Amino acid sequence: MTTLQSDPTGGPADRPLRVALLGCGVVGSAVARLLTEHASDLTARVGRPLELAGIAVRRTNIDRPGIDPALFTTDADELVARDDVDLVVEVIGGIEPARTLILSAIANGASVVTANKALLAEDGPRLFEAAETAGVDLYYEAAVAGAIPIIRPLRESLVGDDITTVMGIVNGTTNFILDKMHTEGSSFDDVLAEAQALGYAEADPTADVEGFDAAAKAAILAGLAFHSRVTAADVHREGITEISSADIAAAKLMDCTVKALAICTSEEVEGERRISVRTHPAMIPNSHPLASVGGAYNAVVVESTNAGRLMFYGPGAGGDPTASAVMGDLVTIARNRVRGAAGPGESAYAQRPVMGMGEVVTRYFISLEVIDQPGVLATVAASFAEHGVSVQTMRQEALHRAEDGGARLVLVTHSAPESALGATVDALANLSEVHEVLSVMRVEGE
Amino acid sequence: MTTLQSDPTGGPADRPLRVALLGCGVVGSAVARLLTEHASDLTARVGRPLELAGIAVRRTNIDRPGIDPALFTTDADELVARDDVDLVVEVIGGIEPARTLILSAIANGASVVTANKALLAEDGPRLFEAAETAGVDLYYEAAVAGAIPIIRPLRESLVGDDITTVMGIVNGTTNFILDKMHTEGSSFDDVLAEAQALGYAEADPTADVEGFDAAAKAAILAGLAFHSRVTAADVHREGITEISSADIAAAKLMDCTVKALAICTSEEVEGERRISVRTHPAMIPNSHPLASVGGAYNAVVVESTNAGRLMFYGPGAGGDPTASAVMGDLVTIARNRVRGAAGPGESAYAQRPVMGMGEVVTRYFISLEVIDQPGVLATVAASFAEHGVSVQTMRQEALHRAEDGGARLVLVTHSAPESALGATVDALANLSEVHEVLSVMRVEGE
Repeated sequence: MTTLQSDPTGGPADRPLRVALLGCGVVGSAVARLLTEHASDLTARVGRPLELAGIAVRRTNIDRPGIDPALFTTDADELVARDDVDLVVEVIGGIEPARTLILSAIANGASVVTANKALLAEDGPRLFEAAETAGVDLYYEAAVAGAIPIIRPLRESLVGDDITTVMGIVNGTTNFILDKMHTEGSSFDDVLAEAQALGYAEADPTADVEGFDAAAKAAILAGLAFHSRVTAADVHREGITEISSADIAAAKLMDCTVKALAICTSEEVEGERRISVRTHPAMIPNSHPLASVGGAYNAVVVESTNAGRLMFYGPGAGGDPTASAVMGDLVTIARNRVRGAAGPGESAYAQRPVMGMGEVVTRYFISLEVIDQPGVLATVAASFAEHGVSVQTMRQEALHRAEDGGARLVLVTHSAPESALGATVDALANLSEVHEVLSVMRVEGE
Repeated sequence: MTTLQSDPTGGPADRPLRVALLGCGVVGSAVARLLTEHASDLTARVGRPLELAGIAVRRTNIDRPGIDPALFTTDADELVARDDVDLVVEVIGGIEPARTLILSAIANGASVVTANKALLAEDGPRLFEAAETAGVDLYYEAAVAGAIPIIRPLRESLVGDDITTVMGIVNGTTNFILDKMHTEGSSFDDVLAEAQALGYAEADPTADVEGFDAAAKAAILAGLAFHSRVTAADVHREGITEISSADIAAAKLMDCTVKALAICTSEEVEGERRISVRTHPAMIPNSHPLASVGGAYNAVVVESTNAGRLMFYGPGAGGDPTASAVMGDLVTIARNRVRGAAGPGESAYAQRPVMGMGEVVTRYFISLEVIDQPGVLATVAASFAEHGVSVQTMRQEALHRAEDGGARLVLVTHSAPESALGATVDALANLSEVHEVLSVMRVEGE
């Protein structure tokens, strides 16, 4: 660490840039460590030293080895308001006090790095506007897919192209759970308990297994990719808690894998570009590049008119990978500060309307238990036809419990609007020939 | 296209930014088309219209549909010297006249996008210095791996991390050839002829099959990843022309695939960070993420201390994908121009020394035909031991031609310095017990 005296009024060209760190959990402590260990490399890369001004924590009486105890403060508001702070790193998470602290830092003229997907998805436009007005940077590579560079490629590398689809595995916990269910045939509850014991899932797993985390990331990705403002409220969200071992087994029979996906699409509908943003489990063919993404890894596939299909793959969480993404942003905003310019801000000029889920076109896998008598197939097929849904494949299986005197029908539809598919399933459930609708799942990624 | 009058003296905040395009081949014509077709989106993303000032071509009498013939000029020197040109896109390729034109454009105050890997690998430092001095941008995402965003992730996303390895398939032509040899068992010459007929390989395939193209890309990747100046002359280069069907078959038996790789590593040797940069064919295990990259696709694996292993995958060549990368850079340098600042320049502060190939640590696969008599195994094993090379696996196979009275030995070594491995192979070739060294190949990507 440098010992140069900081100078709040600007001062000499080699004065250190002062960094306020908000939060010192797994990611925050990794950031603090890297700032110290790599000080000379960071100085060379930025053009000036980076110096920790302070670290806001909830309790200062916790032993945090390797970090100067004098840096800790419980008064985050005071820390971000200090006039010698140039850069703020927010790794507290959650909506408040993170939002107030970031807005205060921006108002104070600091550039900000945040890993806070929930806040960006809920109130991103307000934060971006504040940064734009103040002429400072707000960077957030760590908010989506951990260490995987996906924000910068969408915001800069592909900014001259027309992105049509962003589809990814952006939640490591649910991918770990589904992967285990797939390879071991275990139930959701058993694997969740195992994931919790291993630290892959939190004691309250709601944000992950109910899809809130993935929905926030989907909103961020869609906003960037389609130059539109998208919030978590625009995202159709379904979790993985209803996925059964039978669903996984059915996917295997189809040469498919069940993955929890975030899917953002943009398409021409009635002469205008509309977007859809959703997160839900779906079957994807084993030949799809996302099918082989195992464990807690993340991957994002981006399709655009000119670049074609790109894939980005890597660790989606964890202290060190997330800290790597935070540090990349921190060096970038520090370089911008040294050059006296902010990077590109939010681009939401297109404001493409978000389609309701009913309008989204997808495919369904449907498994039904039906009575085994002549005419059933015709009745079922008629139900699909009435709703304008075309069937791609239909297979009849004998039931294991022969005494039921029934049969199992397994169908995969062609692409159709979600509303028509849903209405078809409702109609099937009401047919007297259908004992039970065993499983319904979307099929993605042709 | 906008009809606003351009104003060479700076002019109003909404005056168009004027773009000079050097070259109008497959990539250049795609760039010209995108500038026209996406004009309104590009204006919104940049903050000002982008307007073609002129297109330098060798002959103006070629019909290029959809492009205003008045834009063409054969006088590239005059075009880049015009005082109303803000941005220059160079897609001519080769060293001259590209270098002179880029230097002239920079001296004239224009920011530059180039896809020219050969020029950057030969004389990059001179171009970066010129850009730095003039305070303009020199961007080159399209120079490596086509549409795959790899330059920006290395330069910005991972700039706060410590990159240890960049390993990639960065030449689509050789990947196409090796993939075909692998799946069809065909010979190199047959597949090359097929690739030429399909347009995947050029009439003179030297740059691809002898590794010059991959070596230039490796130099660019290593320079960026390790903050050092690396030129094509620093790269150990081997082509794929010596790869036989027998080599491919041997790899298959090892559950491996032969890939032409660009490999850049940085490691601590005798208390200092040293780097190695090389491009050559190698066996990689089928479980490695690069093993399944087929056809003309590219992929780059980046390993760093904190982020772990990342992979970037996509189309490595072609007019539209390359144009997508060029357009991403063009919008970025245009945004920088609108904000009155240049992006981060070259970072070569580390100047890590480049190791000679002899120092590089790798593993070898070796296949030998030996006489079939007692003591041969001991003699061969002694040869390895004398050179300090440890053998991981050794297998003896019966020869198909039993009348030869010989046997085949297949060995894989543990990691050892290339010089020791080479000396071992030389010693083996001179043993009276060894009829022939059938195949030697590096094994990478554990």
